[in-house]
Amino acid sequence: MLMSKMASTVDTSNSSGLELHNKDKRMTIATTGMFPTRAAIDGDRLWRSLMDLAEIGGTPKGGCNRQALTDLDRQGRELLTRWCKAEGLTVRFDAIGNLFARRAGRNDTADPVVIGSHIDTQPTGGKYDGCFGVLAALEVIRTLNVNGIETERPIELVSWTNEEGCRFAPCMMGSGVFAGQLTLEDALSRTDVDGISAGDALKAIGYMGDDANRPGRFAAYLEAHIEQGPILEDTGDTIGVVTGALGLKWFDVTITGMAAHSGSTPMHLRRNALLGATQVVDAVNRIALTYQPDGRGTVGALQLLPNSRNVIPGQVTLSVDFRHSESDVLETIVGEFRKTLDTIATETGLAIEITPTADYPPQHFDTDCIAAVRQGAQANGYAHRDIVSGAGHDAVFIGDIAPTAMIFIPCEKGISHNESEYATPEDVAAGANVLLHATLNLSGAKA
Amino acid sequence: MLMSKMASTVDTSNSSGLELHNKDKRMTIATTGMFPTRAAIDGDRLWRSLMDLAEIGGTPKGGCNRQALTDLDRQGRELLTRWCKAEGLTVRFDAIGNLFARRAGRNDTADPVVIGSHIDTQPTGGKYDGCFGVLAALEVIRTLNVNGIETERPIELVSWTNEEGCRFAPCMMGSGVFAGQLTLEDALSRTDVDGISAGDALKAIGYMGDDANRPGRFAAYLEAHIEQGPILEDTGDTIGVVTGALGLKWFDVTITGMAAHSGSTPMHLRRNALLGATQVVDAVNRIALTYQPDGRGTVGALQLLPNSRNVIPGQVTLSVDFRHSESDVLETIVGEFRKTLDTIATETGLAIEITPTADYPPQHFDTDCIAAVRQGAQANGYAHRDIVSGAGHDAVFIGDIAPTAMIFIPCEKGISHNESEYATPEDVAAGANVLLHATLNLSGAKA
Repeated sequence: MLMSKMASTVDTSNSSGLELHNKDKRMTIATTGMFPTRAAIDGDRLWRSLMDLAEIGGTPKGGCNRQALTDLDRQGRELLTRWCKAEGLTVRFDAIGNLFARRAGRNDTADPVVIGSHIDTQPTGGKYDGCFGVLAALEVIRTLNVNGIETERPIELVSWTNEEGCRFAPCMMGSGVFAGQLTLEDALSRTDVDGISAGDALKAIGYMGDDANRPGRFAAYLEAHIEQGPILEDTGDTIGVVTGALGLKWFDVTITGMAAHSGSTPMHLRRNALLGATQVVDAVNRIALTYQPDGRGTVGALQLLPNSRNVIPGQVTLSVDFRHSESDVLETIVGEFRKTLDTIATETGLAIEITPTADYPPQHFDTDCIAAVRQGAQANGYAHRDIVSGAGHDAVFIGDIAPTAMIFIPCEKGISHNESEYATPEDVAAGANVLLHATLNLSGAKA
Repeated sequence: MLMSKMASTVDTSNSSGLELHNKDKRMTIATTGMFPTRAAIDGDRLWRSLMDLAEIGGTPKGGCNRQALTDLDRQGRELLTRWCKAEGLTVRFDAIGNLFARRAGRNDTADPVVIGSHIDTQPTGGKYDGCFGVLAALEVIRTLNVNGIETERPIELVSWTNEEGCRFAPCMMGSGVFAGQLTLEDALSRTDVDGISAGDALKAIGYMGDDANRPGRFAAYLEAHIEQGPILEDTGDTIGVVTGALGLKWFDVTITGMAAHSGSTPMHLRRNALLGATQVVDAVNRIALTYQPDGRGTVGALQLLPNSRNVIPGQVTLSVDFRHSESDVLETIVGEFRKTLDTIATETGLAIEITPTADYPPQHFDTDCIAAVRQGAQANGYAHRDIVSGAGHDAVFIGDIAPTAMIFIPCEKGISHNESEYATPEDVAAGANVLLHATLNLSGAKA
């Protein structure tokens, strides 16, 4: 392991009077140099905490069903709060229920380094998605405490409310409210299938706090997470240095022909909407393939009308999901796609309509935060590679308002949102060690 | 119009001791020569009856919802029975509720010529499907009565129970029981969505009769019907001389890959079941196109799993419907299809399973009955063409046990099983005139 000194850069033009939630006023964070490299997290302790938390909502198949704002979420928050308090942290909640647990810095008025993720799960979720990031942050703090390490900046552990968005849409609700992506009022008014509002559910579990409890501006935000994809397993890397997140553009496409009897309608008199749809599906795939390695194109949902065995499909509705790391390439992809739809409509005589349904620009994480993560992997001798997140994370919203990066570890076969989700104890420990080193780097540690 | 004399042929090897329901013991019917060509049906009378019957279950959009074994079916049967009795016919019902209404022949022990169809409709059905065939048969009898025409053979009007199979599956239930395709017990035990059995429903409407009421062996069975397809409209013909029905083979195909996140899974690590499914859909279409004009290939139903916008489809299930007029070609089509599935599975690495779900051989109607229909069209100077039925009809089952043919008339845009189903009064009259002439031809009329 090497001692390391990060380049200290402050964008002085933006170094004062900044407001949170203002994307254009990012500050390039200052790193404060020396930090101890001998400290290492306790992998067994971290693993035990992961397994203990997973018991709350644990499923017979070894997964976890602890959806946001349920009583199980309350139990999870209680356990996490108890653990944080045991480490001497100051625990608070904001109005949407995000948990902040503060470890004082030597310069306690300095902007904190914030580390964490979320502890809510999918209905058939696993033990690692989100929980790994929160408990890795807790393990970093436990390690600092055990080793008597002080940091210049305060450290805030964060657990964002309702990242999964299962019971209450949208997903990434807590970080979304925090980053100004949706208003508190909007979020609290969202209802579940029984008509209960998120606000009432949050009050019912006793975790509606006050926005005065929020930390101010973040010096940095770091989130460790399982990859939820197959790349690291495929390449044999332990650590993904996450440089950003793919932008996405979603569409609904409707292809209309004419429903007719499959027996009495000869082939040459048909207007089969499904034959147009297969061309659209193939085009989505083909266009994405021409923009590798970051291009993604998926038709995930598709419905036929009337969807009857002996009726020629009269209409097909399908979803299109395009993603890329660069805005201009994403625009090019969509332009090609629209042109291809025109060609298909002309050649088949089918009517094709396209409606945009979602549009998120690519996220480029902070250079210094990325460098701190990469350096943490190098310092520990972990095989690592730069990677772009294809999925949404709280960090993608926080990246709009604060210097941000993420740390990925492999998950088995890339499977997530599934009870069989799995990460090895070794990779879990490695991810936490990288988080420790990057946190020390960015917070200015003193042993 | 020409006087015409049909060749009289009796297959003497099968001319006695035949049993109904025995496909291999068909009798080539004897035609008895001269019949009057001046008689013509009354198009206005027929049209009024069609419109009157359509009021029972008539829908605001101009269609008809008179499902089998409902109280509306009872009302329809009552009206039809009244009309039949007004013509002096002897009306009986068999155990599955098929209506037979007999007009005596000069040789009343001779096998009857049977004409008709069904009067039950789809839930959003039209006025013509089935009802046209029954009321054309009634109009034939009215015309004979008005013109004082005697026939050598008796004539039986038939209205088959539950051709549509909407409330009680399967379709073509009454003719299926009559032809031995399913047992009476099986048919009566079928239940609707509320658990009511077909037997109880038939009793409740008061139309469960006795199989002793059935006519014996049919000399011929003729069914007039709207085409339910677009061919006659496309070619500008008034009459379709139906030479048989396409055989069909149905399959369920399941294509299995691996569900995964559409953002975090790069293109080269995907196992996208939908990309296999598009190849299957295209193959079904391409193979059917190589066996024109009678080949049909359709994927009518298709489901994705999990069918979520941001998940790569892990599994696709789809239905395949192949049809052709010749058994050996149908076998060839299916052989090619199975081979293509193997190729797709090998090339894509996806698992593909195929399960047969239905198999009906092609039906070839009786040469003499077909000739009688063709001659009826010629005698009236109607533009006509030979056509193979792509849809199922009571005649397809009856064709297994008796000399059978059908008469098609055009329906607008080929649309059927739809409230907008429409046939012109002129075509309706033309179809009934062909039925009149073919019936006279086959029954041995004397003016």
